[in-house]
Formats: sequence, structure tokens, C-alpha cells
Amino acid sequence: MELVFLGTGSGVPSKERNVSAIALKLLQEQNSIWLFDCGEATQHQILRTNIKPRKITKIFITHMHGDHIFGLPGLLSSRSFQGGEDRLTVYGPEGIKNYIETSLAVSGTTLTYPLSIVEFTEGQLLDDDQFMVTCKQLDHGISSFGFRIIEKDRPGRLLVDKLKQDGIEPGPVYQQIKENETVELSDGRVIHRRQYIGPDKQGRVITILGDTRATESARPLAENADVLVHEATFGTDRAELAADYFHSTTQQAATLARDSGAKKLVLTHISSRYQDGDDAQLADEAKAIFSETELAYDFYQTTIESK
Amino acid sequence: MELVFLGTGSGVPSKERNVSAIALKLLQEQNSIWLFDCGEATQHQILRTNIKPRKITKIFITHMHGDHIFGLPGLLSSRSFQGGEDRLTVYGPEGIKNYIETSLAVSGTTLTYPLSIVEFTEGQLLDDDQFMVTCKQLDHGISSFGFRIIEKDRPGRLLVDKLKQDGIEPGPVYQQIKENETVELSDGRVIHRRQYIGPDKQGRVITILGDTRATESARPLAENADVLVHEATFGTDRAELAADYFHSTTQQAATLARDSGAKKLVLTHISSRYQDGDDAQLADEAKAIFSETELAYDFYQTTIESK
Ligand SMILES: [Zn+2]
Ligand SMILES: [Zn+2]
Repeated sequence: MELVFLGTGSGVPSKERNVSAIALKLLQEQNSIWLFDCGEATQHQILRTNIKPRKITKIFITHMHGDHIFGLPGLLSSRSFQGGEDRLTVYGPEGIKNYIETSLAVSGTTLTYPLSIVEFTEGQLLDDDQFMVTCKQLDHGISSFGFRIIEKDRPGRLLVDKLKQDGIEPGPVYQQIKENETVELSDGRVIHRRQYIGPDKQGRVITILGDTRATESARPLAENADVLVHEATFGTDRAELAADYFHSTTQQAATLARDSGAKKLVLTHISSRYQDGDDAQLADEAKAIFSETELAYDFYQTTIESK
Repeated sequence: MELVFLGTGSGVPSKERNVSAIALKLLQEQNSIWLFDCGEATQHQILRTNIKPRKITKIFITHMHGDHIFGLPGLLSSRSFQGGEDRLTVYGPEGIKNYIETSLAVSGTTLTYPLSIVEFTEGQLLDDDQFMVTCKQLDHGISSFGFRIIEKDRPGRLLVDKLKQDGIEPGPVYQQIKENETVELSDGRVIHRRQYIGPDKQGRVITILGDTRATESARPLAENADVLVHEATFGTDRAELAADYFHSTTQQAATLARDSGAKKLVLTHISSRYQDGDDAQLADEAKAIFSETELAYDFYQTTIESK
């Protein structure tokens, strides 16, 4: 499970930072990739990675500002051009359906794959055997959402050493033990799964917030997250500007990370007023409050290890 | 007057070529820049040039395919973000208005400058004291247009040597001679402008065609053009494929250039099936028919000298 930051800028692209997009690689988990936001030229950024557009099966849009959506029609078209066949689902706020459908219609684009567009308000977006995704409204003037991606706990590992100790040798019986509460062995013994399976592997939690002011709404989304991705459009000294424009500062992002018990904070959506040389300062402002902070740059990548 | 090729690929962006956009720099002529097509990430390409988005006052769209329009909403927004104030006019086929207005509306974008959107069919798009622009339907399955940009002839230079010979010394009288049919000099002589003005400076003609099959319609657009910009999606050996997909080959483009008396041909919209190493071969196919051919690459620039 890896997060790849494809665009870490704010509002307009610059030479250093493209507009917003984050890929969540779930290749081991389900051989697919999810995208969070899709600013213009996200497909161009993808060209510079090993991400294959046809592997992207879900796109989540935090809010409708142009720097978060204007790359959608192009990415959808190119995924088709490259022969994608698997269903793609786009989850976004009200308006996303009109935007996508109009863009595809006026350009005469027909897709090679089925496309679902889900306009959401708040609550649970997704619940399958591996993941649950919930979302909640933040504070950005227009509707802007944060997502909490919850990996479900998985059964623990088979305790092979203990099985061998008890004279149960490797073979098809191991699979039977995994899949059944009780198993009768060839020697007539009846054993219980719980004796030979370790504790549940705890699922991971990733929190990705859209543009927002510091807001209490974000707290339940971020609670104990393994990674919290938070915008930091401005440095600490521009709290007033941040509030005026419905954005956050480095300090505000770090405060949420600390108070919610998140394990790691990644800052993104950095204003183009800042240059490369300012990155250390911005990161330090956050680290003073929450030490496990990284300031993302385009193509920055972080692995969320399984537990 | 310069043409800057911002994107020279076809259909989808590649690492080598972005999707379509061409800038016509009219900085000396009228301190503005016109854009022809605006594929995704055109504003990103512009970041790598000295073009300022606020200087772009007209955008002409050849046809509605995504690789020619998906960069519009982002460029329009960024021009606003950067404080553009001058009117911008977008000329495009039917659907362009719905596309732009929907994109701006759903993203909550309000522009700092007045925007006009002109949906055209065929004929004259523009006629001012400097330029006339006409357009004509080509052959691309959907409506696709070619543009003929005609610079108007300008009055010739004042023949200063001859004026001096005739005892007329430099001063405000020179301006009077330029602006009036006849002028009475201080010594009582009446002179005629035509005696002291050289021949008209002939205006330049630039022809930019949208995606198209080889078609007779293009001929009047290209007639005696100083530069003809023509798509060459495919090489000569793929004429059948070109016809099937409503595109042209290198050979077809060169044939039009030769038959229409164009002075220079620039090939663009090269299929992503071709690599950098194929460029010489593609150019040579055209040069065999029309020697004054260039195969454009991203950021290729050509000056159209005044006559
Ligand atoms: Zn934003
Ligand atoms: Zn095209």
C-alpha cells in the first residue's frame, strides 16, 4: 500500500508542483489503484511513473475546484485509448456527473470501459470485503470532503511451528484449517482453528482531506490514522490569509495530526508563493508540533506497511 | 510574427509530444498572442516558454476532440488567477460554449476578465484593420475546420532619400505626407503622397488546418500561404489507416503544400506510434514532394518574416 503524490501544488500549476492528485496503490491488496483528485495534467504526471491508467478503478474527488478536476476528461479518454476494459467508478460531489458527461459528449468521446459516476453527500461510499470508505464535509466555502479509507482486519497467520510441534505436517490440511472452525485430521483428532491462527492482522487507515480550513469535522476522519494527508496551502504566519481563503496552515495541519493520534502527517497543496527553498521551513513549522511530518513534493511516495 | 508549436502529438500525450496547441505570436503587430487549439496541459507547456497567458487574446479551436480542447478550462482559469484583464475571445465549433460554461460553472470559477465565446460554422470570423480570418470545413468525421489568417497589406515606406533630393527636409511634414493624399509645403509646392511612398508591404498569410483527411476543401485555405500547418498523423505507407481514421499522411500534406503554392509546410499532430527516431523519415517523405517542409516538435518555433 503506497501513496504517490502526483501533484502537490495549489490553484495553478507551477514548474515545481502540478495541481492536485494522489494515487493510492493497492496492487498487492487488489491489483488496482485509486486516485484522489485529478487536476489538469495528472495523466502527464502518470506518464512519468509506473502507474498504468487501466489499473485505476476508482477516482475520488474531494471538491469541484478546477485544480482538482480539470484532468478528469483527459485521463478518462486516455484510459480508453489505451484499451482499458475494467469498470471505473468516479465518486465526487454534486456537479461531477454533469462535468464528466458534458466533457465526454461535446468531444465525441466513447469509452471502451463501463464508467460509473457516483455523486455523494456524506457518509459511507464503499464497503466491500477489503475496504470501507467514509467521507465527511469539511470547511472550504464550497462543499469539500475528507475521506477515511479503512482497510478491514484480516485473519492472522497460520502458526506453522505449533502445527508441526503437534505433529500436523504441511499439506492440503493447512488450507482446511484456515477455512474451517474445526477440522478432523486423518488420525481422527478434531482440532479448532483458533488454536492454530495468530491474532487478526489489523487493517490500515488512510485519511485524505480535501481543501479546508482548520475544522473539528476533520477530527473523526483523522482519528488514529496511519497516514493523514492534509493541505497546508500557507505557512504558520499566514493564518489570517488561510482563514480568508478557506485553507489551512502548516501549524493547523500538524495540530490536527497530534490531537487525532495520527501516526504520520503528509502536507500537500502548497501555495505557489513558496519556492523549493521554503520547504524545510514549512516542514519545520509542522514538525515543531507533530514530529512525524513530511512535506510532499511531486512524485513523493510513502509506503504504509502492513501491521 | 512567430508560430510556436506547444503540442505536436495526436490523441494522447506522450513523453515526447503533448496534445495539440499552437501559439501565433503577434507581439510586434498588436502586442498579443493567438492560440490555435488547446489540448490538456497547454498551460503547462506555456510555463516553459516566455508566453504570458494574459497576452493571449484569441483562441481558435479547429474541432471538438478532447486532445484539442481539454486544456481550455485550466488555461482560462489560470489567466484569471494571474490577473488577466483584457477580453479573451474563444472561437470554436458548436459545443464549445456548453463545454466552457459547464466547466467554469461546476468548478465555481469566476474570471477576472470578460470572456466571449463565438460558435462559428464557416466563413469570415474576424476582420479588423490588421487581420482577416476565414475558416472552412475539412473532412474529419466530426466538424473540423481550417483557418486562413490573412494579414492586410500595409502602406509602403516613406522614400526619405527622394524627399531629401527634392529639398523636403525631415520634420512634422513627413507625417503629414504619410497621412494625406496631397500636402502643401511651406514653399507653396503641392506634392502627392504616391510620389513619395514605396509599394504596399504585402501582408502575410498563415494557414492552420485542423485534423483532416486529404481534401479539396483545404486548397483555397492554403493557396499561396507563407506557412501551411498541416496534420500528418501517419507516414506515407499508412494511407489506408489515415483514411479510416479521418487523418492525413506526410505525403498528402506535402501534396497540398505543393499544389496550393504554399511557401513552407509544417507538419504536426504526429501519431504516438512514431518515436523520435522516425522524425527524419517522416520529414523526408514530405520533402520528396515539397522541399520546404519541417516536422514540428514540441517548442519548435518558426518566424514568418515581413515582406
Ligand atoms: Zn485546491
Ligand atoms: Zn487530434
